[in-house]
Amino acid sequence: MSQSQPPRRLARAEAVLAARRRHLTVVLEDAHDPHNISAVLRTCEAFGIQDVHIVVERGHAPSINDAITIGAERWLTLHRHAGAEAAIAVLRARGYKIYVSHLSSESVALPQLPVDVRSAYVFGNERDGVSSAWAENADARFLVPTSGFTGSLNLSVAVAITIYERLSRARTPSDLSEEERRGLRAAWYAKLAHGSRELERTFESYLENPPDPELSFPWDRSR
Amino acid sequence: MSQSQPPRRLARAEAVLAARRRHLTVVLEDAHDPHNISAVLRTCEAFGIQDVHIVVERGHAPSINDAITIGAERWLTLHRHAGAEAAIAVLRARGYKIYVSHLSSESVALPQLPVDVRSAYVFGNERDGVSSAWAENADARFLVPTSGFTGSLNLSVAVAITIYERLSRARTPSDLSEEERRGLRAAWYAKLAHGSRELERTFESYLENPPDPELSFPWDRSR
Repeated sequence: MSQSQPPRRLARAEAVLAARRRHLTVVLEDAHDPHNISAVLRTCEAFGIQDVHIVVERGHAPSINDAITIGAERWLTLHRHAGAEAAIAVLRARGYKIYVSHLSSESVALPQLPVDVRSAYVFGNERDGVSSAWAENADARFLVPTSGFTGSLNLSVAVAITIYERLSRARTPSDLSEEERRGLRAAWYAKLAHGSRELERTFESYLENPPDPELSFPWDRSR
Repeated sequence: MSQSQPPRRLARAEAVLAARRRHLTVVLEDAHDPHNISAVLRTCEAFGIQDVHIVVERGHAPSINDAITIGAERWLTLHRHAGAEAAIAVLRARGYKIYVSHLSSESVALPQLPVDVRSAYVFGNERDGVSSAWAENADARFLVPTSGFTGSLNLSVAVAITIYERLSRARTPSDLSEEERRGLRAAWYAKLAHGSRELERTFESYLENPPDPELSFPWDRSR
């Protein structure tokens, strides 16, 4: 790697950072299927959702399947909560609206929910849905409208479509403050050194003067 | 069930039929993970995609996980092909454009592909992508644009977002001919009788004079 121009992976980290969001967050409660949880983490990372909240209400802490996330969780901020009440308190303190996925004729169709407000989209267990504390604290309950005999979507699919629908209508490419951006940059540059002390020092030297964003393809790992 | 008004499940079948599509089809080649295949079938059914093509090029015929499809495949037309060449011949004969999912900087972003043309969206194996015959016969290669470190999406997520994006821009609610509609109606009415000879006869009597579409929620199975 040449020292004369900024390392490619930092330019790419800047491109990722320029599209990162925290005003939209995903909450998973008691998701049982590691495949689903892992696919959700991968989807969130791929579309720039920085924060994922994992709530254990009735079961055990979920395991994450590396073969499916392909390491996506390394770039996310994961929040773990013991129970819905604790998660709700944290989300409320941070000013999030709470939108709960719920399959009922009384739920609002996703496209009718406001975009560009700080909001948490809550998805419950594949079988039982969310626990009652969520329903009591929801600003709205929503569903992804479907047209088939099958009304419910696979959990990871429901989350993916929710994110995609919201982002396709968002007005800004990113919503991070300069401070949040600096915090993530420091953490990511350190991780991108992959344990090399020399690279760590090199990358640190770019923290105050980061390279221009350059979106290279992620599978282009050679540079 | 009252005989004086049309059975609810037929009214619901009519609502499903009114939103059914065949001009958009999904092709899966050598998908290895039964979770993925099953989630794809469920997503296609839920969003009204009638035809799914399953191509076995290198491996074995995939198994379908009923716990994940929750029976969605019963309402679909599944086409099985031994090899990509055979599938391509069939799709071409039926006038489909072939759009191949391919993660490369040379691929077109999904939203740039034309909508409302008869088209097949082809998704390859989770690890190796599609076989070379598809690339040679593709009208275009496309990708779902992402913004994270993780460039690739889980297979079932990529298919779901592709369908959602296409349908959100489609101009018509359905594209079936009257003849296709009649064919599906007969097959569905028979299935909805769940093996009861008496219900079969009752439902048959509605074939020439079907009830008005009425979208009731699928979990409302009591009526």
